[in-house]
Amino acid sequence: MYRTHTCGELRPENIGSQVTLSGWVQNVNDLGGMSFINLRDRYGITQLAFNMDENAALCEAAQKLGREFVIRVEGDVIERASKNKRIPTGEIEIKVSSFEILNASKTPPFTIEDKTDGGDELRAQYRYLDLRRGPVQEKLRLRNKVALETRKYLDSQDFLDVETPMLIKSTPEGARDFVVPSRMNEGQFYALPQSPQTFKQLLMVSGFDRYYQIVKCFRDEDLRADRQPEFTQIDCEMAFVEQEDILNMFEGMIQHLFKTVKGVDLDEKFPRMTYAEAMERYGSDKPDIRFALEFVDLNEVAKGNGFAIFDDAEAILAINAEQCSSYTRKQLDALTDWVRRPQIGCKGLIYVKCNEDGSFKSSVDKFYSQEDLAKWAGAANAKPGDLLLVLSGGLDKTRKQLGELRLHMGNELGLRNPKVFKPLWVTDFPLLEWDEGTNRYHAMHHPFTSPKPEDMHMLDSDPGKVRANAYDLAMNGVELGGGSIRIHDRDVQSRMFDLLGFTKEEAEAQFGFLMSAFEYGAPPHGGLAFGLDRLVATMGGSESIRDYIAFPKNNSGRDVMIDAPSPLSDEQMTELNIKLI
Amino acid sequence: MYRTHTCGELRPENIGSQVTLSGWVQNVNDLGGMSFINLRDRYGITQLAFNMDENAALCEAAQKLGREFVIRVEGDVIERASKNKRIPTGEIEIKVSSFEILNASKTPPFTIEDKTDGGDELRAQYRYLDLRRGPVQEKLRLRNKVALETRKYLDSQDFLDVETPMLIKSTPEGARDFVVPSRMNEGQFYALPQSPQTFKQLLMVSGFDRYYQIVKCFRDEDLRADRQPEFTQIDCEMAFVEQEDILNMFEGMIQHLFKTVKGVDLDEKFPRMTYAEAMERYGSDKPDIRFALEFVDLNEVAKGNGFAIFDDAEAILAINAEQCSSYTRKQLDALTDWVRRPQIGCKGLIYVKCNEDGSFKSSVDKFYSQEDLAKWAGAANAKPGDLLLVLSGGLDKTRKQLGELRLHMGNELGLRNPKVFKPLWVTDFPLLEWDEGTNRYHAMHHPFTSPKPEDMHMLDSDPGKVRANAYDLAMNGVELGGGSIRIHDRDVQSRMFDLLGFTKEEAEAQFGFLMSAFEYGAPPHGGLAFGLDRLVATMGGSESIRDYIAFPKNNSGRDVMIDAPSPLSDEQMTELNIKLI
Repeated sequence: MYRTHTCGELRPENIGSQVTLSGWVQNVNDLGGMSFINLRDRYGITQLAFNMDENAALCEAAQKLGREFVIRVEGDVIERASKNKRIPTGEIEIKVSSFEILNASKTPPFTIEDKTDGGDELRAQYRYLDLRRGPVQEKLRLRNKVALETRKYLDSQDFLDVETPMLIKSTPEGARDFVVPSRMNEGQFYALPQSPQTFKQLLMVSGFDRYYQIVKCFRDEDLRADRQPEFTQIDCEMAFVEQEDILNMFEGMIQHLFKTVKGVDLDEKFPRMTYAEAMERYGSDKPDIRFALEFVDLNEVAKGNGFAIFDDAEAILAINAEQCSSYTRKQLDALTDWVRRPQIGCKGLIYVKCNEDGSFKSSVDKFYSQEDLAKWAGAANAKPGDLLLVLSGGLDKTRKQLGELRLHMGNELGLRNPKVFKPLWVTDFPLLEWDEGTNRYHAMHHPFTSPKPEDMHMLDSDPGKVRANAYDLAMNGVELGGGSIRIHDRDVQSRMFDLLGFTKEEAEAQFGFLMSAFEYGAPPHGGLAFGLDRLVATMGGSESIRDYIAFPKNNSGRDVMIDAPSPLSDEQMTELNIKLI
Repeated sequence: MYRTHTCGELRPENIGSQVTLSGWVQNVNDLGGMSFINLRDRYGITQLAFNMDENAALCEAAQKLGREFVIRVEGDVIERASKNKRIPTGEIEIKVSSFEILNASKTPPFTIEDKTDGGDELRAQYRYLDLRRGPVQEKLRLRNKVALETRKYLDSQDFLDVETPMLIKSTPEGARDFVVPSRMNEGQFYALPQSPQTFKQLLMVSGFDRYYQIVKCFRDEDLRADRQPEFTQIDCEMAFVEQEDILNMFEGMIQHLFKTVKGVDLDEKFPRMTYAEAMERYGSDKPDIRFALEFVDLNEVAKGNGFAIFDDAEAILAINAEQCSSYTRKQLDALTDWVRRPQIGCKGLIYVKCNEDGSFKSSVDKFYSQEDLAKWAGAANAKPGDLLLVLSGGLDKTRKQLGELRLHMGNELGLRNPKVFKPLWVTDFPLLEWDEGTNRYHAMHHPFTSPKPEDMHMLDSDPGKVRANAYDLAMNGVELGGGSIRIHDRDVQSRMFDLLGFTKEEAEAQFGFLMSAFEYGAPPHGGLAFGLDRLVATMGGSESIRDYIAFPKNNSGRDVMIDAPSPLSDEQMTELNIKLI
């Protein structure tokens, strides 16, 4: 037997018991007459005590143990002389009578401590050692809890967990598929699912009524910090529902998760905002509403003074950074540099300091009088001591840029408290978005999203204006999930494929099974998918999802620990009937 | 709003309420003055009533509804004149005041009834309609329940659900991998996991202590009825355990599942049998112990009488089919044909009828006297009225053949009651098996399985004799799962790779990360994986897993509904840097 107790379990009431523990040597502390070892496992740390006077040989053997050795010890639980109130086992220690080395350890390439000295690359290569560190284990424990509580909630609401296939069909629409050559079907390929979308809709056609799955999805995209080639969705679908039913159901789920996992009570009703309003007020379809810094439209007060940049701009938008008029030249230059970075792409940044004495100081004093600037301040509701930051240009672009600056200022001013969670439903997304590259419409959500009935009349005449029954749940500036009421009518679905530039043949070849299913009594249905990685990272107060994934891939899509992907053998290639170009 | 209640919800206490229901038209029953519709959803069936006298137009409209139309109805709950005690809603019906067609339906290609008229292929093509049938939905509901109860049990035992990656590295050992070309890493491929084996072992090295995952795995094998290219495992691993700890833990899990899901109490302690004993008594490493028909060794009593087939045979084995001496010539011929089929491969079948009068009648009367045959009967403990069935040949082959015949007789004699569940731990599997094709040893379980310490001394001298710390859980003739204590020592692992014919370079290239992990304090660990598909099928009393999978593939690995796999576009191939041979 390897252990009678874990390393996190013993308490004063166990004093006097003989116990067996197994775990890792966290450190060895040699005080001459006494030696102490902190023995660690997933459940905690227990102090082992060795006494030179009582058993010199044992004590000396213990002193030779290295960090991360795995040992099994036997001994008596005794009261600890100097108690450690910071850990639950801190009132006891083990007076060791014997121990055995179960496995030795080389010196780890970085310290296995909450704050390690290992760099990102080294930790990625030795991920199995990085995963020993407390904060990393904590993140995966959080993920485990969130997943299980998600299941419990959805099960209590009669959702059925149904597994959909991983080896499906490639559909060139949307992001790139990962594909899998079929050996048994020569020259043909499976695709890995970007989401179980069509299958969950078929389950609604099949009458499953409420479906969920926590499922891996795959997208062959160029990667960013918060993207992984494989990611996990909480995928849900309901039949006989309207948007309101879905929002209520998943509001309940998110509340349940925050309550049970974090002990946090979220708003009883999540606020809602249309896409149009979110873009107008925050320049983002996933606004962080933990703080204001809302957009102010300066078009009326700032045009016509001969400042060409503004006069020619479609939009002049400002945010009011309260109590920031004391920003120095250096701080303002840094902000200007920040918005000029290629990721943001502004030409410059205009500021107006609302001085405490009621005067104004701006970077465009040449063009605007104190009275002019007073009007700006009025429009922005700015008070003495505040700082206006102004961007201008095309409407969409300026909104996006100012939205980024708003988040940046939120960070700078400490307005984005990671312990505060502000959910927001964003609704009424546009059905389509125009793609300059391909010169045609793309589905903003996906081709199965239902247009709003009241906008159907514009489907041919002004498709860009048609709103969808689509919604996202944003939280703290992150999109946690999104969904829509789906099309359940063959003709509407077929019209949608037309709009998206599919030929009838392409639509039939790729999605014929779905359109066919719609002809056999498809119920109205809709659903939603949450990104589990992002949800957990947000709950953990982090913006990067990578830490919340046990074995993540790097920005080149590689697992550097196992060294994948890797070349195939010639035999494998031949069997699959493929070769490299 | 689509519904106030589901179609399975209304009871006499709802009489008098106004309700809205939505669902599928199961059938329309036109009785002249009255028409009735059975409205169906996942939760049940509710009868809708239409009265010609009260609302002729509505009644006539209802009569025009076709099977599988989706409708929403409003009406009052009233007491039913002729009650249907077979369904929970059978005491009420809805007096419909209005209805709306939500979606029409073409006539389905087969009936959506418990017993359908659709053939296998048609139902596969329209799987979304097949999934509407009650028995099919019941199977997936069972699967949902088993998965959730598995999670609840493992969570209660401190197991953490950790997701391991799907895009990993191809290792030519074992079954064939499905591979995924990497666009970002030109000329390189990921593999889909055959199991998360190495990752779960790394999690043990990381100190996660107890891990589980219900996870898709992939094997590119030629398919049989109970094999699918993608299948689902309940994958588990524990640190600081011996075999006994693992068997107890998962005995508890299986007991929990049968109790909570099926209300069945399994044996308090599951019986155990070594691999050697299972092969000797049943000719199978997953014996069905719901019935006896155990093997009888006739070598001693049947050799040396000049019957060359027996005299030359390594093994002469019999089973005693009790009360079957009345088998007719035709029945015996059918049995002979059965064992001669290529899947079994016997040359013939010898029988001995133990007649009620104490005499014997056999197919080898020419060689054996009544006294000889009496000895056989004695060895087999056969009584008058019994029938001995005898096979002979090489030991391994004859055991396998007689094992198959034993199961066949079990079926014939009705001894395999699908409502009886008999678990059995099979232990002490051989570590290696000799492969005639490649002329070398293969790992019977996998290369990470630990040899028994007491057999380690034979690892070089007689590797075929070494037993492993490996175990399977069999039930009713099906292998539900299997596992082992793993190697956690770099040197032993390296020796194992040597034995399996890996060069040092190959071992390092493929599994260097694991052997390296073993050098940094790897704890003793072991685990087990259950096949969820098989577990659920067994619990459902079925031998085929396909019915328990929402969207299964056929024997060519195709999904005929979505028509996958399929050819890729040239653009996709070029982007992936591959072409067809």
